[in-house]
Amino acid sequence: MSDTRKHVVIVGGGFGGLWATRALASAPVRVTLIDRRNHHLFQPLLYQVATAGLSSPDIAAPLRHILRKQANAEVRLGEVVGLDADARCVVLADGERIGYDFLLLASGATHAYFGHDEWSAHAPGLKTLDDALHIRRRVLLAFERAEAAQTEQERAAWLHFAVVGGGPTGVELAGTLAEIAHKTLRREFRRIDPAQARVRLIEAGPRVLASFPESLSEKARAQLQRLGVEVSTGTPVGSIDADGYTLGAEFVPARTVLWAAGVAASPLGALLDVPRDRAGRVQVLPDLSVPGRPEIFVAGDLASLQQDEGKPVPGVAPAAKQMGSYVARTIRARLAGKPAPAPFRYVDFGNLATIGRRAAVVDLHGWHFSGVLAWTFWLAAHVFFLIGFRNRLIVLLNWSWAYYTYQRHARIILGGVDDTSANDDED
Amino acid sequence: MSDTRKHVVIVGGGFGGLWATRALASAPVRVTLIDRRNHHLFQPLLYQVATAGLSSPDIAAPLRHILRKQANAEVRLGEVVGLDADARCVVLADGERIGYDFLLLASGATHAYFGHDEWSAHAPGLKTLDDALHIRRRVLLAFERAEAAQTEQERAAWLHFAVVGGGPTGVELAGTLAEIAHKTLRREFRRIDPAQARVRLIEAGPRVLASFPESLSEKARAQLQRLGVEVSTGTPVGSIDADGYTLGAEFVPARTVLWAAGVAASPLGALLDVPRDRAGRVQVLPDLSVPGRPEIFVAGDLASLQQDEGKPVPGVAPAAKQMGSYVARTIRARLAGKPAPAPFRYVDFGNLATIGRRAAVVDLHGWHFSGVLAWTFWLAAHVFFLIGFRNRLIVLLNWSWAYYTYQRHARIILGGVDDTSANDDED
Repeated sequence: MSDTRKHVVIVGGGFGGLWATRALASAPVRVTLIDRRNHHLFQPLLYQVATAGLSSPDIAAPLRHILRKQANAEVRLGEVVGLDADARCVVLADGERIGYDFLLLASGATHAYFGHDEWSAHAPGLKTLDDALHIRRRVLLAFERAEAAQTEQERAAWLHFAVVGGGPTGVELAGTLAEIAHKTLRREFRRIDPAQARVRLIEAGPRVLASFPESLSEKARAQLQRLGVEVSTGTPVGSIDADGYTLGAEFVPARTVLWAAGVAASPLGALLDVPRDRAGRVQVLPDLSVPGRPEIFVAGDLASLQQDEGKPVPGVAPAAKQMGSYVARTIRARLAGKPAPAPFRYVDFGNLATIGRRAAVVDLHGWHFSGVLAWTFWLAAHVFFLIGFRNRLIVLLNWSWAYYTYQRHARIILGGVDDTSANDDED
Repeated sequence: MSDTRKHVVIVGGGFGGLWATRALASAPVRVTLIDRRNHHLFQPLLYQVATAGLSSPDIAAPLRHILRKQANAEVRLGEVVGLDADARCVVLADGERIGYDFLLLASGATHAYFGHDEWSAHAPGLKTLDDALHIRRRVLLAFERAEAAQTEQERAAWLHFAVVGGGPTGVELAGTLAEIAHKTLRREFRRIDPAQARVRLIEAGPRVLASFPESLSEKARAQLQRLGVEVSTGTPVGSIDADGYTLGAEFVPARTVLWAAGVAASPLGALLDVPRDRAGRVQVLPDLSVPGRPEIFVAGDLASLQQDEGKPVPGVAPAAKQMGSYVARTIRARLAGKPAPAPFRYVDFGNLATIGRRAAVVDLHGWHFSGVLAWTFWLAAHVFFLIGFRNRLIVLLNWSWAYYTYQRHARIILGGVDDTSANDDED
């Protein structure tokens, strides 16, 4: 085929990569979107899969399906392991080299353990659907182990759930775990009372939801406590192993510790020979390109960019979408010989975090609210932004059902359950 | 606790065990239901999970949740590995011994490879949710591998789907695979045409759906062919490996072979010191108890029982339910000092099998029909029998949506995808 169109290669089918791909639909280019997974994931609702409120397909859609009508886009399932910037090609794990005229790296972030990688086996993090199903399995099995426990001590360790990290994900996980223990599992066990479970949210800093105004952090703490979550701030976790964790001088027996504390950029940033920040994010130019390589762009959680007063663009879905669309605009302008768009500016529409049933906080440019109103706002926004009409409808139905019954329909444990520890890693 | 009630231990939360448990709700006994899984599975729709039409939670419900209001029932997650019939106790994998006054073994069946266990790695069978997700992954990855294939030969091997076994499961799988290839994936790939996929159903016997009247087998074959399935009868598969299978003298390159041919009873039957049939099923007495052990019963696929004219009770869900309820009636009668119920008789309400979109066959005591009417009947019956109102509603919605759009919403590949072969076993 003598295809004379320029080739745009986009690595990562998250918000950044997918929005860029779509924004190139009518551009005179062909686009190859490469992802290790076959699906786009609506990450803001991932904690709902981890806590058995939603199924995997509720918050994920095959990339091929999303892009089936975009004739100039091709989806490639594969892992990028190398980059030859001089030859302008990326290298896949199966050895194939894919040449590009423009490259967008949008491979996101993963969780990080601040130099304590040995904690990862005991305190799983939440970034992918596989992570979510692993956490779901751990949590559901913990109640089963508690029911079968022979000693009071053992039972207490299985009924202690610690969430490390008081950001939005940690707050959501802790709030939902408390709801599961106090409401969902009521009446289902005969030897334990799930409501006796201890759910603890551990934040090393002085307050939860540190990216929100202080007053909303206080509201969030109060709402968490009302839901039955113990909130511990000001002291970092000292160690984590299969039996529990240390906080200050105290060792706390706990068989379920979840990690929502650290984030590190995808290792793909290291393929570029350019400066990166402490979290491994690529320091991009104001047009989101990379110093010395105007044909390579970075978007989303992998990009590090300061705006006015040195404030960094946050690692949230709206920022990734805006960056993806911006890169597409830049490429179109260059191909058309038009002047480059003005430097990228993140437009912040506000910040919201959910805490649990009818509990959330919202910060809309100084307009702060919390509680039921914030929760309703959060729910509407998240369902609205879910990709695909079917998903929205099913998710709404699942939610309404769960709301009225406190039930979480996805409480299905997959994989074997006969190992004596729940600390195995398969799903 | 000085609980003087008799203890009924039921092993297996499938149709047999669950129906027995429920039928004992008001009996003066306490019931312990032991299962290796935390959920009851609506097995007749398992092929829909394998083919990405439904999510796991659509067809499964936690046993604890189903039984939460039955005060005399306790659910125990665990694997039975031993039986001490003299001491009247079962032994769990974690070493715990659970005593019983009455025991019901209802642990079902698994797939069997007729002495060719080496085929299992290459031709997965379909009995559990894990099996279904493994098959889903294999099928979806096969199309991805075909899209990435470098040679025409490789591509053809990835696009050949063989289903071994022409019973209801094999027919359902083959029909749905053809629909996926011809309809669902249309427009989603750029290098392959999924409609070129070859879906082959291989039955060693003379006809598909051998348990149906001959005229319906013929109808089923015609409907399969209309859907694009090649139907091959009369020759058994000679071998299966990672590269393909042999049929007669021919070796056929195929990367996806699914097994729907053989069934063997659960190994728990071997714990009993009583005669078993060739498939390992326990030959029960007419009251479903075991020779010499009137306090031990067997129900469902693990039981072997001939009725009039030596016709065996079939291994289908209605038979398992009827057996479970019958055993509960027998236990109640014994405890009340009443005469035993009349010997068990399977009441056959009819036989139905689905083939694909608007294609099915129904045999209601000589009233035979097929096509759209049969399909509608099948759909109504299956949705009606799904446990739990929420599941029914969601499943109906998913189905209606899939029907109008040909989409299968659960096309999400979990787990890594970077191995060069799809023949791995993890999910």
